[in-house]
Amino acid sequence: MSEFQQRCRDIASRLPELKADCFLVSSGANVRYLSGFAGSNALMLLTPRETHFFTDPRYAIDATQSIGATGIAKVHVVKGPLATAAAAILQRKRLKKVAFESASTLYDQYTLLQEKLPLGASLVSAGKVIERRRMIKSESEIATIRESVKVNSQAYAHVLKRVRPGVRELDIAAEIEYQMKMLGAEKPSFDTIVAAGRRTALPHAHPTDYRLGQNELLLIDMGASLGGYSSDMTRVAHLGRVSSRIREMYRAVLEAQLAGIDAVRPGATGGDVDSATRNVLKKFKLDKEFVHSTGHGLGLEIHEMPRLGSKDPTVLQAGMAITIEPGVYVEGVGGIRIEDTVLVTQTGCEIMTPTPKEFVRL
Amino acid sequence: MSEFQQRCRDIASRLPELKADCFLVSSGANVRYLSGFAGSNALMLLTPRETHFFTDPRYAIDATQSIGATGIAKVHVVKGPLATAAAAILQRKRLKKVAFESASTLYDQYTLLQEKLPLGASLVSAGKVIERRRMIKSESEIATIRESVKVNSQAYAHVLKRVRPGVRELDIAAEIEYQMKMLGAEKPSFDTIVAAGRRTALPHAHPTDYRLGQNELLLIDMGASLGGYSSDMTRVAHLGRVSSRIREMYRAVLEAQLAGIDAVRPGATGGDVDSATRNVLKKFKLDKEFVHSTGHGLGLEIHEMPRLGSKDPTVLQAGMAITIEPGVYVEGVGGIRIEDTVLVTQTGCEIMTPTPKEFVRL
Repeated sequence: MSEFQQRCRDIASRLPELKADCFLVSSGANVRYLSGFAGSNALMLLTPRETHFFTDPRYAIDATQSIGATGIAKVHVVKGPLATAAAAILQRKRLKKVAFESASTLYDQYTLLQEKLPLGASLVSAGKVIERRRMIKSESEIATIRESVKVNSQAYAHVLKRVRPGVRELDIAAEIEYQMKMLGAEKPSFDTIVAAGRRTALPHAHPTDYRLGQNELLLIDMGASLGGYSSDMTRVAHLGRVSSRIREMYRAVLEAQLAGIDAVRPGATGGDVDSATRNVLKKFKLDKEFVHSTGHGLGLEIHEMPRLGSKDPTVLQAGMAITIEPGVYVEGVGGIRIEDTVLVTQTGCEIMTPTPKEFVRL
Repeated sequence: MSEFQQRCRDIASRLPELKADCFLVSSGANVRYLSGFAGSNALMLLTPRETHFFTDPRYAIDATQSIGATGIAKVHVVKGPLATAAAAILQRKRLKKVAFESASTLYDQYTLLQEKLPLGASLVSAGKVIERRRMIKSESEIATIRESVKVNSQAYAHVLKRVRPGVRELDIAAEIEYQMKMLGAEKPSFDTIVAAGRRTALPHAHPTDYRLGQNELLLIDMGASLGGYSSDMTRVAHLGRVSSRIREMYRAVLEAQLAGIDAVRPGATGGDVDSATRNVLKKFKLDKEFVHSTGHGLGLEIHEMPRLGSKDPTVLQAGMAITIEPGVYVEGVGGIRIEDTVLVTQTGCEIMTPTPKEFVRL
């Protein structure tokens, strides 16, 4: 049985606890997780015995070859709304309790689904059953994330060598994204952040045509999507002379990040790890400047469960891939964030990101 | 009054017809349309007199400078769910009928919103009021789309010159995306499609490490996102010798595409334009191989209203930016699609895409 079939069967086996006869999977990332399909329009219907896959004619050849022929699911190529075709199967198989993904279904789609349901059938929220399963990565997923992390770090190293005063933030972002593709990534796993000088104080800066000055900060937050899986890394470098204020900020964030990594182990909660980074920054009187959470899971999506935020109760388990990324942002001065992709292991964690973290001077 | 303020006031003036006291705008593209804000987390609340803007601390500096200081909206920087902060204002201002975007609100967000509503308040679907306004582009939007289209075509021309047998689809895609960024785009407006040989028969092929052969088709579907606005173009070229079958397919699709463009004028419906392309392909007995619709609107999103599909009733109006993109796909042989970005004018239309459409031999 393939890994995809195994996942479908495993989710279907949980129908009783969902109090449902079948499960309508609509989230793109969840469809990909269960079938490998990466197109933009698909729906799956899991029943205790069968898996159905719906897509439109643009993907007919793709789906038939990769999903139909491999026995993952029965493929239905549908003109018009996929939900209508799924409803016909609900009718035929007399499926009554239909679990749906309330967290990733649009309200209008929900209404459409309601209308299409056979008489006597009803929708029940499936919660985040698949998302929770996705938190724990399989060996093959870990291998893919490892490759994504590696390519991401290689692209960074390649581009960093070419950074000079006068280069635009946009040039650096374009070069990073080009390099990661040449190294095997499909695309960046999010819009690459490149911010220089005081613009580093914007935690989510879009690269602009600002040209790097002689003496200033450079913050790069980048990730590759490879084989569908994300990586995520932030590094800060400095051109020319560094002020003592910036140096102190860097030291604080690095210490916080290492404390966060140190707190990662099976049994710790997301909140525990978040406290670990936040407490270090408090010691440096920089906790008020840390305006986001410590990290997040990643995989088929760049932001997945668990969240590593204040008081987050999710208990870490071996096989979770997460980021640890404290940052401080001071308007008019600049911002520092240091981020690794980290794998929770049986005994603690493994830092997947190979890029060094000392404060690089360019 | 800025264009953003004008848009906010215009939408707010339509509250009576929506039978609502206020409008909660949650779609990212709609928020950008009304405020210029391009971040990933924001919510707007339009009342007859005021505009409120909610975002999280990551975007505090950005939002304060670009939205608060320019008088577009009152900015609220919020920790936790933005909907909670919006609900507090509903309470304070005693706003009862709250229009929300049912087409872009997730079911769980809808439920959360319901819970947060003050006693006696209720949600009403706003339909696609903002999306419909967005169909008609302003002068400044048209200028931006024009720039996006131009950059896209320049990147294509640049890369086409370098295509040789032995190059991978992935190399071409990476080079295209790099070039468009160097020319001023933020990013591709969708994942660039590069397909060679028989893979052109997949209408939405992802580029792979397949290497171009000596005698084969090359299909490239690409768009740039520039200043937030999309462009979209497909061209097909051929390496080496062309079979008569492929030549005939190209001729059919080109004739269909020109017929589609010819049908674009104010007063025509999306369905009329779709019939125009489909009828030509029928003449060539290729209509069954045309498995998608003729085109779509584009702007802040790559797929916007109107849709130009079979029997689509939307009436075209001057100022709409749309694609015309018939295609035929024959498994085992290949696919041809030709696509321009087109502007509906008072008298007909203007083909914005400057790239020539003859069948290029490389």
